[in-house]
Amino acid sequence: MEGFRIDPWGTSYIKDYKRLMEEFGIKPITDELKSQLPFVHRLIRRNIIFGHRDLEKIIAAINEKKEYAVMTGIKPSGPFHLGSKLTAEEFIYFQKLSPKAFGFFAIADLEAYADNRIPLSESYKISLDNLTDLLALGLDPRRVYVYRQSEEMKVLRLAFIFSRGVTYNMLEAIYGEKPFGLYFSALIQAGDILSPQLPENGGPKPTIVPVGADQDPHIRLTRDIAQRYKSDYNFILPSATYHLLLRDLTGQTKMSKRNPMGILYLTESLESARTKIMNAFTGGRATAKEQRKLGGEPEKCVIYIELLATHFMENDDELSELYHKCRRGEILCGECKMYAWEIISRWLKEHQEKREKFKDLAIKLLEEHTIS
Amino acid sequence: MEGFRIDPWGTSYIKDYKRLMEEFGIKPITDELKSQLPFVHRLIRRNIIFGHRDLEKIIAAINEKKEYAVMTGIKPSGPFHLGSKLTAEEFIYFQKLSPKAFGFFAIADLEAYADNRIPLSESYKISLDNLTDLLALGLDPRRVYVYRQSEEMKVLRLAFIFSRGVTYNMLEAIYGEKPFGLYFSALIQAGDILSPQLPENGGPKPTIVPVGADQDPHIRLTRDIAQRYKSDYNFILPSATYHLLLRDLTGQTKMSKRNPMGILYLTESLESARTKIMNAFTGGRATAKEQRKLGGEPEKCVIYIELLATHFMENDDELSELYHKCRRGEILCGECKMYAWEIISRWLKEHQEKREKFKDLAIKLLEEHTIS
Repeated sequence: MEGFRIDPWGTSYIKDYKRLMEEFGIKPITDELKSQLPFVHRLIRRNIIFGHRDLEKIIAAINEKKEYAVMTGIKPSGPFHLGSKLTAEEFIYFQKLSPKAFGFFAIADLEAYADNRIPLSESYKISLDNLTDLLALGLDPRRVYVYRQSEEMKVLRLAFIFSRGVTYNMLEAIYGEKPFGLYFSALIQAGDILSPQLPENGGPKPTIVPVGADQDPHIRLTRDIAQRYKSDYNFILPSATYHLLLRDLTGQTKMSKRNPMGILYLTESLESARTKIMNAFTGGRATAKEQRKLGGEPEKCVIYIELLATHFMENDDELSELYHKCRRGEILCGECKMYAWEIISRWLKEHQEKREKFKDLAIKLLEEHTIS
Repeated sequence: MEGFRIDPWGTSYIKDYKRLMEEFGIKPITDELKSQLPFVHRLIRRNIIFGHRDLEKIIAAINEKKEYAVMTGIKPSGPFHLGSKLTAEEFIYFQKLSPKAFGFFAIADLEAYADNRIPLSESYKISLDNLTDLLALGLDPRRVYVYRQSEEMKVLRLAFIFSRGVTYNMLEAIYGEKPFGLYFSALIQAGDILSPQLPENGGPKPTIVPVGADQDPHIRLTRDIAQRYKSDYNFILPSATYHLLLRDLTGQTKMSKRNPMGILYLTESLESARTKIMNAFTGGRATAKEQRKLGGEPEKCVIYIELLATHFMENDDELSELYHKCRRGEILCGECKMYAWEIISRWLKEHQEKREKFKDLAIKLLEEHTIS
């Protein structure tokens, strides 16, 4: 994913994802589709959500005031960071797009145990923390079903049943050669995505799964399985939207806990957050003189793309203004970082204050699945 | 398994299983071991249960008055037949051998769905019917935990965790090349067998699993997994006993519903049962004259081995007498079948009467897991 180019006002920057799209049939979100959405999220406006499968089904459900599901999940292995915020916001966006939308939120605590040796009691606490963030980000607790993988018989039952319907060839074609356990995890994810359509969850309905581009194999497997089990469950093939894979603060394309300077947590102290922002990777030139002359390169800049365009600057005009100021060399990285920090620190403070109000509700939500 | 020879008073007839025993380390149940059991079941006396792994652990638990578990399961795909009765009796035997024994009984309803397309609501009814037989056969409902696979999160959780710890090589070495779904079923069986040792089920304890000889791969896989996860769960490697693979009434070594004349159901009408017994495969000679001269061959006879020695004749002296009468040509097959039918019909009648008394308790047991 290295070197992709982002242009917040066009579709040109998705060209590095073209192969993915052409090869696997992910479609761009055209202006026509955008015009049919009741509200166009900044991530869609800026083509950070760059592609989809069957988004039309969701738009039709919205227009016809029919039920649809929004599905996502997290592995509760640590506090929410910017990556978690991205998926959470997409989830909340689709949940709020129609009063007939209903969210399904999976907490993959078994995965956290199997991959990271996090005991279920510990991942329970992490989940509470994560749900607090989700609520502070705007999740509607009355229209979401929150469940832990370790307690959700319905999903494991589906995974078991699907395990009888898949072959090695099918799994290898999609994922390449992978360990046995990872294949089974993939079947559980298929169970997660299709469980909103089970009779006990209200039966077949369009389902939208907002994911990162790297998650497409799960979507393809699930659509394949949905097709295979159509006669048993009457599944509607799930829809998906795809966002670009974003870099960490240091400009690395793969986030890793081994590089803590790269990850901004939503619950991080302001001091620590400030240090990370001030050290973030930018599109600045070698010298101030050069930058004044040539202008900066916002297309390469983490402050610009990952922080402001993706997360913290809602207003398109302001973003455009900053972009051009940078390109013209009218603002240098130090000043820009101060400006960004003002916006980000305000957001972090507000978010952390909001969190305080949602801690009890998070406990209730985890215990009761839905708060009505 | 064709052509194994049975000698109810020696160990010679296990010689066809010698390869299995030598290759995989199943040990014979020696006279010394037998002498340490508080009561020696007819199946052990007659070496129909011919081998074991780690039976010593169970004997030690009995002698030291320590807890141990007995584990078995059924796939609820139809009414109890002689094969189900065999495993059920072994289960009940080990459950009653010590007041410190506790049974775990799995109802593999997900398997019944995946393999036989039996809906969970249907397998629920079949399970009730099967539990009624178990109770009529002597199951102590106060010292057993009955669970349905489709509801037992503990077991599916373990299977999921184990799926991360196994490799294709390991599974292929044990089972040969098998479809993906069957491998996963094997992991669920490992979960079943090790679940009595989970903290929520009272922690590590010796566990005895009475199985047919063909089930040994599951035992080996489970012992291998128990070893791999020892540091996490402190598992004690499970013990097992092995019974011979018995033939159906027509002398076929593989029971199949496609050959209904071969299967005797415990709930079968007496008329139908009688017809099947009268048509059963025997060790008779071509003519009555020849048989009087040469004697019959009880070692080949379903009436003798499968019905009387295995299931319906408790008294060793009576069995021995019949054996020698047959060998000496003093009793022909027609007469012998009448004699056997008298015993079997009495048993069936009594069993079916007992069943009536246990129907309500079966419902309670399935709902409440244990009746105290």
